[in-house]
Amino acid sequence: MTVSGLVQFDDWVDLYASRVETMRTSAVRDLFAAASRSDIISLSGGMPDIRCLPLEEVGQVAAAAIVQEGVAGLQYGDTQGRVQTKELVCELMKDWDIDVTPDDLTITTGAQQALDLLGKTFINSGDIIITEAPTYLGALQAFSAYQPDVHVIPMDDDGMRMDLLEEELKRIGKRTAKFIYTIPTFHNPAGVTMSLERRIRLVELAKEYDTMIIEDDPYGRLRFDGEPLPTLRSMDDRVVYLGTISKVFAPGLRTGWVIAPLPIRQKINMVKQGSDLCGSALNQVICEHYFASMPWREILDGVCVKYRERRDAMLSALEEFFPAEASWTRPQGGFFVWVTLPEYLDTPQMLSAALEKGVTFVPGDGCYPGGSGMGKNCMRIAFCYEEPEMLREAIRRLATVIDERLALYRAFIQAGALKA
Amino acid sequence: MTVSGLVQFDDWVDLYASRVETMRTSAVRDLFAAASRSDIISLSGGMPDIRCLPLEEVGQVAAAAIVQEGVAGLQYGDTQGRVQTKELVCELMKDWDIDVTPDDLTITTGAQQALDLLGKTFINSGDIIITEAPTYLGALQAFSAYQPDVHVIPMDDDGMRMDLLEEELKRIGKRTAKFIYTIPTFHNPAGVTMSLERRIRLVELAKEYDTMIIEDDPYGRLRFDGEPLPTLRSMDDRVVYLGTISKVFAPGLRTGWVIAPLPIRQKINMVKQGSDLCGSALNQVICEHYFASMPWREILDGVCVKYRERRDAMLSALEEFFPAEASWTRPQGGFFVWVTLPEYLDTPQMLSAALEKGVTFVPGDGCYPGGSGMGKNCMRIAFCYEEPEMLREAIRRLATVIDERLALYRAFIQAGALKA
Repeated sequence: MTVSGLVQFDDWVDLYASRVETMRTSAVRDLFAAASRSDIISLSGGMPDIRCLPLEEVGQVAAAAIVQEGVAGLQYGDTQGRVQTKELVCELMKDWDIDVTPDDLTITTGAQQALDLLGKTFINSGDIIITEAPTYLGALQAFSAYQPDVHVIPMDDDGMRMDLLEEELKRIGKRTAKFIYTIPTFHNPAGVTMSLERRIRLVELAKEYDTMIIEDDPYGRLRFDGEPLPTLRSMDDRVVYLGTISKVFAPGLRTGWVIAPLPIRQKINMVKQGSDLCGSALNQVICEHYFASMPWREILDGVCVKYRERRDAMLSALEEFFPAEASWTRPQGGFFVWVTLPEYLDTPQMLSAALEKGVTFVPGDGCYPGGSGMGKNCMRIAFCYEEPEMLREAIRRLATVIDERLALYRAFIQAGALKA
Repeated sequence: MTVSGLVQFDDWVDLYASRVETMRTSAVRDLFAAASRSDIISLSGGMPDIRCLPLEEVGQVAAAAIVQEGVAGLQYGDTQGRVQTKELVCELMKDWDIDVTPDDLTITTGAQQALDLLGKTFINSGDIIITEAPTYLGALQAFSAYQPDVHVIPMDDDGMRMDLLEEELKRIGKRTAKFIYTIPTFHNPAGVTMSLERRIRLVELAKEYDTMIIEDDPYGRLRFDGEPLPTLRSMDDRVVYLGTISKVFAPGLRTGWVIAPLPIRQKINMVKQGSDLCGSALNQVICEHYFASMPWREILDGVCVKYRERRDAMLSALEEFFPAEASWTRPQGGFFVWVTLPEYLDTPQMLSAALEKGVTFVPGDGCYPGGSGMGKNCMRIAFCYEEPEMLREAIRRLATVIDERLALYRAFIQAGALKA
């Protein structure tokens, strides 16, 4: 039965909350459908190479998990996550030199949910938070729902510039920034890693200016060269640390965690009740069985060999194809290279041309707070998912898009239409 | 390496966002650990009886899903959910007399996430929203993060009182309430169902006063007696409808959905990007395979026979053991009975005594907006999870707790310490 013509809103616009006005969609997410098209080579998604997993065996692990623990796994679970999953995470964290107990952490729907929960717990509209520039666009999205005033600190090849952070903290004063959000290792999107010296300094500055550090570490275990550096959390128990199995096992299980002091975790758990009641117990049970019964380090090391080859292929192709005006970072691990083009080029505008040529990337402006206008001449390109020869082809295509823009710019200059 | 003694907050209190101050933890969630203790009979959780599922076969379904579709299922997925899962939901919705296409819906982490996303999308601090009284405590939790002004409309055995709703809408004026949130069928916690006449009137009033309806329908398929009533969504395309597989398959997969007009869904999808990037593709793939390859209606009908027996056992036990001063609802489906005790009794205070006697319930005050003081003489008791003889024992234990309080009250009256 239908009662027709009811509820005739002219539009919904004035019904939306104000926070929605300043939020932006993510290019990575918007490109997700395009990225899975067979005619496109995707440099946009930070997708781990799931094709390296032994699917037959993972299927058997899942079946065993359901038969043995389905009554719990298919039911609602604890809001904080299963104790057994927390115990697994404590074991995993030893590989990251972090020594914690199940009481120190909450399991989340990927680390992304932890970002949302932290935003919800800490940010009032107008509160200052500090991030690197550029920073993870998903973090900006999560935080933006709570309308913070995002102050950004530039980076160089050694990560966040501590001289500039100190200057900023001095300017705004003690206990003013709600937190400093950082991805110290194999930065997304910048591909750089914070030096040991700066890690020590960051922890000191957070103490001196009485603010919190949120360390986001999805890629820490994916090192191809050089020596591991200590996590910030291993240097200070009060650092809030975000981890995930997305890059060491699979993102499809949406299993991450947040390590935080108890008072903070109590708030996060309360906030999480309203957000989802609880995460998927089934995914947690499958994770427990996977890490307990499969040679996960061996599998991961095998994937890292591939990631390393791909990084090398991408860096070679950049040398081969990209114009002299471009510069880029040289990551020792993780998934991403950050490319900086001349300031007069606009990567958001290049995206449709790139799609036409069958390649995607993430325009840099999304990695800066909305409306800042920064990053428009930059792009994030991911080497994690495509084979070396495809990466070479993708970079070749992307170079043609850039070259066309450069040529257009030069023609304008010659015509006197623009000042050099 | 540890740099000791860094970041010495005296406390974190003044760092939290103001929204955290007014949020409350859920008794259901807080009782979750207690509810799984073997010495406790739980009447607190709305847990479907997962023990009725054929775990061996569900395990095989999951294994096949991973082997056949693991490359997608273990990867990041579309923020809105997999197209195949949406197609499955469209098929399921036909059982609810709702005719939709994949373009009409977004897959969420349980319907709970949809509540959070709707709150995030629509509620500014201080905005009026309307709910039934009592209402689903998880909805209050989700919305409370956005600090609405919750106006409540009393119910009777035919659901929300439309005369009182009309009065309230007239008082606050057109297009003032952001939305009317309702659980018309087998209400949580009240156990009542909105009559057809009131459904029609609700849709009319929403039109007349230009506000939105959110229909939350987790239990609609679990009818034991009487004839099905049309969903509000089937009566008006602009009703926002929330569904879930939690009660027709399993909550451990955290798979729900929101059906909404396109402009609203676009906002929800953007908001969802920041909240979790995407839900679990693995859980979605397993759902698709479960509903495609298992006789789910047959399994569900079998579970409903059990639920019906349990409801009957609970109602009989209430007649047998509860004092004359108590009254309760008689649900035709769903999971819950709502008990009203004399106003001088306080159910939140009874909870610890009940736990000592080995039984849990949900105190009624959590089902009303915080600080309202309403519902303190009420309790929600769930009949879904325990066998009839256990339910009888649980009600017997609960009756002794109530009887003790009543005796105490009478003694006070006799002693002249309280006025009758």
